[in-house]
Amino acid sequence: MSQASSAKEVVVPGEPAASVRIGLLGCGNVGSAFFSMVTDGALSVAARTGISLEIGKVAVRDPSRFRGGLESHSRLVERLVADPWSVVQDEEIEIVVELIGGVEPARSLVLSALEAGKPVVTANKELVAACHAELLAAAEGAGVDFLYEASVAGAIPLVRLLKDSLAGERISRIMGIVNGTTNYILTRMSEEGIGYAAALAEAQALGYAEAEPSADVEGFDAAAKAAILAGIAFDSLVVSSDVYREGITSVGASDIDFAKRLGYEVKLLAIAEREGNDGPVSVRVHPAMVPSSHPLASVRDSFNAVFVEGEAAGELMVYGRGAGGRPTASAVLGDVIEAAHHLREQSRPRPTKRRAASLKPISELRARYYLSLEVLDRPGVLAAVAAVFGTCGVSIRSMEQVGLMDEARLVFITHTALEADLQATIAGLERLDSVERITCLLRLVDSEEPE
Amino acid sequence: MSQASSAKEVVVPGEPAASVRIGLLGCGNVGSAFFSMVTDGALSVAARTGISLEIGKVAVRDPSRFRGGLESHSRLVERLVADPWSVVQDEEIEIVVELIGGVEPARSLVLSALEAGKPVVTANKELVAACHAELLAAAEGAGVDFLYEASVAGAIPLVRLLKDSLAGERISRIMGIVNGTTNYILTRMSEEGIGYAAALAEAQALGYAEAEPSADVEGFDAAAKAAILAGIAFDSLVVSSDVYREGITSVGASDIDFAKRLGYEVKLLAIAEREGNDGPVSVRVHPAMVPSSHPLASVRDSFNAVFVEGEAAGELMVYGRGAGGRPTASAVLGDVIEAAHHLREQSRPRPTKRRAASLKPISELRARYYLSLEVLDRPGVLAAVAAVFGTCGVSIRSMEQVGLMDEARLVFITHTALEADLQATIAGLERLDSVERITCLLRLVDSEEPE
Repeated sequence: MSQASSAKEVVVPGEPAASVRIGLLGCGNVGSAFFSMVTDGALSVAARTGISLEIGKVAVRDPSRFRGGLESHSRLVERLVADPWSVVQDEEIEIVVELIGGVEPARSLVLSALEAGKPVVTANKELVAACHAELLAAAEGAGVDFLYEASVAGAIPLVRLLKDSLAGERISRIMGIVNGTTNYILTRMSEEGIGYAAALAEAQALGYAEAEPSADVEGFDAAAKAAILAGIAFDSLVVSSDVYREGITSVGASDIDFAKRLGYEVKLLAIAEREGNDGPVSVRVHPAMVPSSHPLASVRDSFNAVFVEGEAAGELMVYGRGAGGRPTASAVLGDVIEAAHHLREQSRPRPTKRRAASLKPISELRARYYLSLEVLDRPGVLAAVAAVFGTCGVSIRSMEQVGLMDEARLVFITHTALEADLQATIAGLERLDSVERITCLLRLVDSEEPE
Repeated sequence: MSQASSAKEVVVPGEPAASVRIGLLGCGNVGSAFFSMVTDGALSVAARTGISLEIGKVAVRDPSRFRGGLESHSRLVERLVADPWSVVQDEEIEIVVELIGGVEPARSLVLSALEAGKPVVTANKELVAACHAELLAAAEGAGVDFLYEASVAGAIPLVRLLKDSLAGERISRIMGIVNGTTNYILTRMSEEGIGYAAALAEAQALGYAEAEPSADVEGFDAAAKAAILAGIAFDSLVVSSDVYREGITSVGASDIDFAKRLGYEVKLLAIAEREGNDGPVSVRVHPAMVPSSHPLASVRDSFNAVFVEGEAAGELMVYGRGAGGRPTASAVLGDVIEAAHHLREQSRPRPTKRRAASLKPISELRARYYLSLEVLDRPGVLAAVAAVFGTCGVSIRSMEQVGLMDEARLVFITHTALEADLQATIAGLERLDSVERITCLLRLVDSEEPE
């Protein structure tokens, strides 16, 4: 008996067989973890859910790189093909799992699968963030599922939380730590007092950060996830390029130290919030000062967490592994089981209503700000700096001066101000001869200001 | 036009009307919050989900206690009935929401509704913990949903996490703070250094604790939730009385202080864990020492959180409001929307496979222990106490003696030991003349012991 047919024969005692054949596109970390979960866990999945799963084909760029050996490896090698289209077009494949990453050819393959009536499960955040509306429309047109729980925050069940658990809820704000690399770097800076460069080097040595780290440290990865989350939470069409984005490269050890002394941790947050019931949506990614007592402040290392504020549900947070082969594969498998149930039940997916989002520009944000600048250490500098704040209508709540050789560092916390006024302040400060440079800007969150 | 018919006419533009008529049993905190969410939020729920909801009848013990006035109150008063059976038997009622609490008459009403082919949504943990198997069987027999997300941890989407998101996952352990009252008391003791009695009095003054607080402080409430969670996580039949239970009444300020100095917080935990894939299940509720760096340690005040460890997903935690009218109503509404979708799709619920659980007795637990005792302050006492530990095979990791008038307090942390041996140690210590009393026993969690 071949491995393929033995995998097919996993049947729950007393239940009719309901084997569902999956085609896998891509077999890197997530794909190989998913393959193992399905093949090694077939019996327990079947016992638990009544669905028996089988992987029919696995498309990889270069099948010759894979070798058999262990039994599970041999079962994988038997199923490898080089042409992803042969998976999508195979009539025996009932569900397509897309783990290639990037927009093309993933987008064309997914559209083709959906149009052929096959539900698709993906972990591809670039694809979902860029082409959400098109793919959902194709899925609805074909009457099949397009599921993407694994595309945001790995194993953390955010999509299901927002779509199902909070289906009747008015969500006012989502704030998340959705990038593990930057959270690892900021945790090390906060706990060890080391600088950004040293923490980045450590993250790179551990494999948490890429040699070219800009997708993480400049906030591009977080921005894609912010777009997906804002889309679900507010039923709106938001793409990555709609997201205001700042990374963590200008955050220094002294900024984190200062924040800690005030009772804050610095975190890179993806924030989506809506004013009132139908107001404009603000979607942004930037480093922020989070009060130490806030649940997000104690999310350490490479963990992710997303904090949701609902009108009736109140404050909710989900926490877990936001990346990694096995956690992401676990989320993919949850979606595959849902798609398989729907296939067997012949139920059509529920229509998703998405409207064009009215986006609130960052200039209209109102927040408290942390601003640090290096100035020449000479008389009259503080007066000149303070005058710029005053002229721009930004009220200073506290200021501290730290000597720094013949220069000095000034650190300001403002009262609540309009972002446009704060940006005008920064521009004004940069024009002063006595200001060497603006070193760091942080926005404070969740501060009830006792003004 | 009457309020009833205007509520009925909420229609999504371009969509066929799909109004679903709900019958509500009970209208206390949760019921009235649910009524408001449905009637005030009907348009936005319909826009978001394509389902328009309408409340047909509301059964309360004494309709004359309710008065009209505000528009929403008037709409409620119009729908009140005194006989819950008239709701369950009403042919126009399509979904029954049970918020009466307790086992009877809730159980009979729910069974009757299910047998009449009406899906039931409940927030009643006593009912679910006691009659889970019977109610699920009735629902499956009738081909309708029985949903109970709101019965555990209020707005926190635990049931959906375990049933759907982790459908393909092997869960090894669940640890949760599932009782807000005791977490509030322990938080106040930890942060203010006050004793148990003072913290309880404060919780009672704030309405967090009942005048007769034993359901909370003795762990009965947490045990019911532990039974529900263990049932879902391990597909097993577990009822409240299967759960080993200790409350927090013996935890003193000095115990919490000692734990903090060692880097731990004391939390009342509901724990369900399984050895291997098919081993026995341990389900228990007791105060525990949680390392300060663990995500559960920073769950403060009356918040709840549940930490789940899955083989592939890794560590996950969900956090939020575990009680209260509006958070619980939000979870009820999520379930009602799911049931309404299934009604409209005419899909049968997925069968739930539950097996009799093989339960591991507490005597077979292996853990590290914290034990504090009051002894007479005279020579030779420590030797006698240490001899009891030694005789019972429990190895002491650290000991501290604190003077206490002419008595002394001894505080021990053990190495990993078998619970049966620890209990034998306690029995032996109680037989010593020099031991006045055992004041507190805590189990340590998540400690990787460097032995």
